[in-house]
Amino acid sequence: MKLFNRVTIIGLGLIGGSLAIAIKKKKLAGEVVGVSRRKTTIDRARTLGIVDSATLDLKKGVKDSDLVILTAPVLKIIDIAKKILPCLKKGAILTDAGSTKEVIVKSVEGCLPAGISFLGSHPLAGSERSGLDHIDKDLFKGAHCILTRAGKTNKAALSKLKRFWGKLGMKVEVMSLKKHDKALSALSHLPHAASVALSNACAKKDLRLAAGGFKDTTRIASGKPELWRDIFITNRKNIAKDIDALKKELTKIEKALERNNSAELLRLLRKAKKIRDSI
Amino acid sequence: MKLFNRVTIIGLGLIGGSLAIAIKKKKLAGEVVGVSRRKTTIDRARTLGIVDSATLDLKKGVKDSDLVILTAPVLKIIDIAKKILPCLKKGAILTDAGSTKEVIVKSVEGCLPAGISFLGSHPLAGSERSGLDHIDKDLFKGAHCILTRAGKTNKAALSKLKRFWGKLGMKVEVMSLKKHDKALSALSHLPHAASVALSNACAKKDLRLAAGGFKDTTRIASGKPELWRDIFITNRKNIAKDIDALKKELTKIEKALERNNSAELLRLLRKAKKIRDSI
Repeated sequence: MKLFNRVTIIGLGLIGGSLAIAIKKKKLAGEVVGVSRRKTTIDRARTLGIVDSATLDLKKGVKDSDLVILTAPVLKIIDIAKKILPCLKKGAILTDAGSTKEVIVKSVEGCLPAGISFLGSHPLAGSERSGLDHIDKDLFKGAHCILTRAGKTNKAALSKLKRFWGKLGMKVEVMSLKKHDKALSALSHLPHAASVALSNACAKKDLRLAAGGFKDTTRIASGKPELWRDIFITNRKNIAKDIDALKKELTKIEKALERNNSAELLRLLRKAKKIRDSI
Repeated sequence: MKLFNRVTIIGLGLIGGSLAIAIKKKKLAGEVVGVSRRKTTIDRARTLGIVDSATLDLKKGVKDSDLVILTAPVLKIIDIAKKILPCLKKGAILTDAGSTKEVIVKSVEGCLPAGISFLGSHPLAGSERSGLDHIDKDLFKGAHCILTRAGKTNKAALSKLKRFWGKLGMKVEVMSLKKHDKALSALSHLPHAASVALSNACAKKDLRLAAGGFKDTTRIASGKPELWRDIFITNRKNIAKDIDALKKELTKIEKALERNNSAELLRLLRKAKKIRDSI
């Protein structure tokens, strides 16, 4: 069911590329336009047939589009948004797929022209893999998508975006910028920090003996460093606080080990199992 | 190819049960006997046909066996070993599949009768799942198995056990008790502690928003608490030291966040990716 005449996706990586095929498959747009910085990506997107047209030119790419979706590392999203805002048609909706929301939304709202709506989206889908080689039309199916409510949120645009992400099979929720960034700090950014710290703590160990447990807990440390640097920087206060909470939990285990306190270890292990099993 | 006339497996959980079918499939024993504390497990093992016979009686189960393999939580392994040592036939080999080695091997060697060989084995295979419902004949294929060398190690028994685990498709290595416990502390027990601490740190968060990253990093926290309590207690000094190292790595990230140090964050993220990608 067509929701938009023309949709432009900026950034054709795992998220952008998967969005393109998902939109085409669900027939949510009359036309899907892809924009990338790289000629090889443009060519590959055309070969794969995931977009109706593709261009290196940002301004040409967003012209006459009803919906523009920015997929890029967080700080890049802000740069690109500022460049394209003056080129969007009246009534256009601009959104993004960035993993932090407060810095993005406040920066973009600060220079929003009249007649254009900007809303922050965060589809909780992805992988440690990146690029068009790993795109998946079902990447969004069944996952959560958070839309943020901020100062300039246009209700009609919010309701249209809710339908859009919902049609891709996502469970859509609306929350404030602060609530989003706090929740994601604990449930996504902290696990990433833990995974990175764990890898780095084992730098000089016999890595050939690493089995399933180590592989699972460190899998996400393979994610793109530049992408995660931007996430960390734009949510740094929440993440620093959550790292502190994680260190306190580690200290509880450490103290129980030092004191040979079997009962306390069992309590901590049982509590963690109960939490993990509840997901 | 038959290596033993009679093999007894004590404990019919994920490891014991998978061992039983793997041994039968590879025809490594004339007869496979299973021992469990629970009548229902005995019945289930018989129904599944994974053992030639099964019994609740430890002494009856190990009688006349050429190889006895103890699969149980670490401290239980020691208890059971002490009970069965006087019942083993001359020339029998006793081994285990416990995740820590120094405490087990020293305890059992301390009461080893003449004519019996005890060797510590650690097949690095497993899962957060447990019980006969999850057994897998290929659980050991391609994984590492560490055999430990200690004071009373009998060379002929060591060489026979090397062949045994090798025939199950495992990459066998021999190392000292201390080296084993140190390596496993960093690469298996520390990730478990991290996973437990991460779950506990997020106890009061919006867990319905937990996506792939959180699920992967905390998956192993679903493991059996009693099993992990024993591992933690019998390798407590190494694990406490490694938790300290992990906290130091977390502090590096925390400091970089507090100082808004983008370059340092990128360095830490790149280092971790390099380590993880090398596995």
